[in-house]
Amino acid sequence: MPEKLEQPPYNQALIVDLYELTMAAGYFENNYNPWSTFEIFVREMPKHRSYLVSAGLQQAVEYLLHLRFTPEEIDYLRQLPVFKHVSREFFDFLAEFRFTGDVWAIPEGQIYFPGEPLMRISAPIIQAQIVETFLLSTFNFQSMIATKASRVVYAARLDGRNRGIMEFGSRRAHGPEASLLAARASYIAGCMGTSNVLAGMKFGIPVYGTAAHSWTMAFPTEEDAFRAYHRVFPESTILLIDTYDVLEGARRATRLGPGIRGVRIDSGDLLTISRQVRQILDAAGLEKAIIVASGDLNEYRIKALVENGAPIDAFGVGTQMVTSEDAPSLGGIYKLVEQIIDGQVRYRAKFSQNKATYPGKKQVFRLIDDQGKFVKDVIGLEDDDIPEDHFTLLLPVIEKGKLVYDLPALETIRTYFLENFDRLDDRFKRFDQPDAYPVRYSKKLQDLFNQLKEQEVHHR
Amino acid sequence: MPEKLEQPPYNQALIVDLYELTMAAGYFENNYNPWSTFEIFVREMPKHRSYLVSAGLQQAVEYLLHLRFTPEEIDYLRQLPVFKHVSREFFDFLAEFRFTGDVWAIPEGQIYFPGEPLMRISAPIIQAQIVETFLLSTFNFQSMIATKASRVVYAARLDGRNRGIMEFGSRRAHGPEASLLAARASYIAGCMGTSNVLAGMKFGIPVYGTAAHSWTMAFPTEEDAFRAYHRVFPESTILLIDTYDVLEGARRATRLGPGIRGVRIDSGDLLTISRQVRQILDAAGLEKAIIVASGDLNEYRIKALVENGAPIDAFGVGTQMVTSEDAPSLGGIYKLVEQIIDGQVRYRAKFSQNKATYPGKKQVFRLIDDQGKFVKDVIGLEDDDIPEDHFTLLLPVIEKGKLVYDLPALETIRTYFLENFDRLDDRFKRFDQPDAYPVRYSKKLQDLFNQLKEQEVHHR
Repeated sequence: MPEKLEQPPYNQALIVDLYELTMAAGYFENNYNPWSTFEIFVREMPKHRSYLVSAGLQQAVEYLLHLRFTPEEIDYLRQLPVFKHVSREFFDFLAEFRFTGDVWAIPEGQIYFPGEPLMRISAPIIQAQIVETFLLSTFNFQSMIATKASRVVYAARLDGRNRGIMEFGSRRAHGPEASLLAARASYIAGCMGTSNVLAGMKFGIPVYGTAAHSWTMAFPTEEDAFRAYHRVFPESTILLIDTYDVLEGARRATRLGPGIRGVRIDSGDLLTISRQVRQILDAAGLEKAIIVASGDLNEYRIKALVENGAPIDAFGVGTQMVTSEDAPSLGGIYKLVEQIIDGQVRYRAKFSQNKATYPGKKQVFRLIDDQGKFVKDVIGLEDDDIPEDHFTLLLPVIEKGKLVYDLPALETIRTYFLENFDRLDDRFKRFDQPDAYPVRYSKKLQDLFNQLKEQEVHHR
Repeated sequence: MPEKLEQPPYNQALIVDLYELTMAAGYFENNYNPWSTFEIFVREMPKHRSYLVSAGLQQAVEYLLHLRFTPEEIDYLRQLPVFKHVSREFFDFLAEFRFTGDVWAIPEGQIYFPGEPLMRISAPIIQAQIVETFLLSTFNFQSMIATKASRVVYAARLDGRNRGIMEFGSRRAHGPEASLLAARASYIAGCMGTSNVLAGMKFGIPVYGTAAHSWTMAFPTEEDAFRAYHRVFPESTILLIDTYDVLEGARRATRLGPGIRGVRIDSGDLLTISRQVRQILDAAGLEKAIIVASGDLNEYRIKALVENGAPIDAFGVGTQMVTSEDAPSLGGIYKLVEQIIDGQVRYRAKFSQNKATYPGKKQVFRLIDDQGKFVKDVIGLEDDDIPEDHFTLLLPVIEKGKLVYDLPALETIRTYFLENFDRLDDRFKRFDQPDAYPVRYSKKLQDLFNQLKEQEVHHR
């Protein structure tokens, strides 16, 4: 069932860099508003990454379709000194502002790579310019987190066992909203759920959590605390056993009998302790009780635990996942690639050596083998002709300001991601010296680029 | 003028880890709700940091005073399987939930250090537990960003010149709301303003921004683009000159005459290029035109530019500041330190070697010399007696659920920070091997800790 288009939780129109609005006013006052196409893409692979996971389209679409400037916002803008010489008509224009452009995008949950447009926006340039900041902020964050989380989920399954990852990072995410969106992105990437309750309510993500050390400390003895918890949550008792002595805690947990669901260890040498705790649980007949581990985990630590056979059934992962600690920003950019001026297509490109921007409205053609595995990507022009077996990554999402894409439910996006991830060979995913997934420009696009570059040289 | 207490932009009650609510239900069902005190503090200094800057109190207070669970939220919670055996009374309790506790906190814009409580919350334990996640998320993020931004501002002023830092990071912040709060925290730390327009409107922060490369690319020639901009913004024209050839761009800028405000350089070797551009501007009689530099800057790069005498008048700093790239999480935690049980004070503490938690309601006493410079901090008990000249960091903010603190305007907080920062010696601020600011526990607090530890040992 398609997820409904939701009203954003607060008016987002002014989540915008001032220069988008000065440029908008500049275009307006110069009577210059040609149909223009921008593309969002990442120029370089972030450190420690070998692929990227798309996420954030739902929030981007909600923003675009609900974008309005309130009268109070327009009053605020009007009194800014920078707009002193800007006409009243511009602010009237903002008051009536609606996004009426076309948008193509890579669906959420797809794998993508640097150079590939995650979204393509075509609209009169004033509209297309105004939406830059919000779109980048949304995609950069959620895609970064989905990418990081996919690595954590991958590490937990390296031996073929389906260990779950619970996203526990709300307190360390970059503010309250970031905690919500990080939960969403992590779920897309295969996490089993989150501790963030609003993410549960808003997105239908399974929510997890039991008790903190403070629960144990608030009762006279650890066993009192365990029994008090079990009384209220008889079917979902996971006891945090490391407030005092973790092995003693495990023994006390067994005294509640086999009805407990499991225990959680949040500190110490998780490999050694999980083995000792497993023995204590098994010896007491609690073979079915699970062991959950948490505490400053990341994909590398989880990989080491899994490869060493730690008897851990699920991991709670927080800080390092929701901040993408080892690569905490994703450099998505927004580049003008084409305009229609006096009915003529004008390609826009940049030719600097390190910061080239390829011209034209692009499509990504993903070549697949006969098992459907991803083989190679070709970045081409929209109407490019690619003879090999492939599918195209960018789909139409908005046409003339109307939604033409059936926004999938989050569960569907997650399944889609897990299928896509399976289609990407492990050699592109390994943490240590992964192979570089092949991405090439099509001949047609490369020819166009070269031709424009030559014209530019002559022009100078 | 005190900043008004604002309604949060969306209902924040469910920005909460599920375990806060399971613990709340557990306490409720066990009829256990003693008056309890929790403290928020950071256990260890983050890497690359030598002090911390407090920020986030305004949002924390707005959250606490407006915290309500909506009927829809309660319906959502009620149907969660984990709450299956929880009584209807608990959900009725949530429906009536108000925060009625006492809060002390370090004001925004103060310097603080690990171990020092940033906030102390005293309330019936159910209330105090529920607010943990949101408070941590708010303080951890804004304090981290204010700390990072203070380093960037410090670097720009290392030679005594008052170069401004503009916060330009919205597109790389961790989502839209993070961009807003990062702008706020950066401003507290001494930035001159932000590109984020909502931060301008909501917090009164000066907003900055002119044009992007796409503006230049959208016109037939660079000079056309410059003139089109200058026409609309005659008094605030800062021209981005590096779209094609930066020195040629500088020459083209001079053709607009001395009326332009300045130029911006966004790429390349900023030291060399700024010198060349300065010469071009001066030679054309534009001595008053300023040079703004941007592009992947951080405190280290700015320090190098400043120390080498780069003729740069202001910096635009984005990604690395708003993500605190080299230390992208702050580990604030929330620990139970005291309860009143049957009218008796019960201290709560943890004695593990690396993760000790000191008991009791604390105060931080900052010892000062006769110039008012910060000399040393003593973490003591609330009623501790410190003979040396000092002031106390924690102030009463909320009493019995009512605001008793005059929330300062953001401008006041920023001034307060800059004054505090001046009172901290440079040897604690330098980037390379800074001195560790001395922080000690008071004798009274240390004695209490030792005494409780001994009891615990005997108890086992």
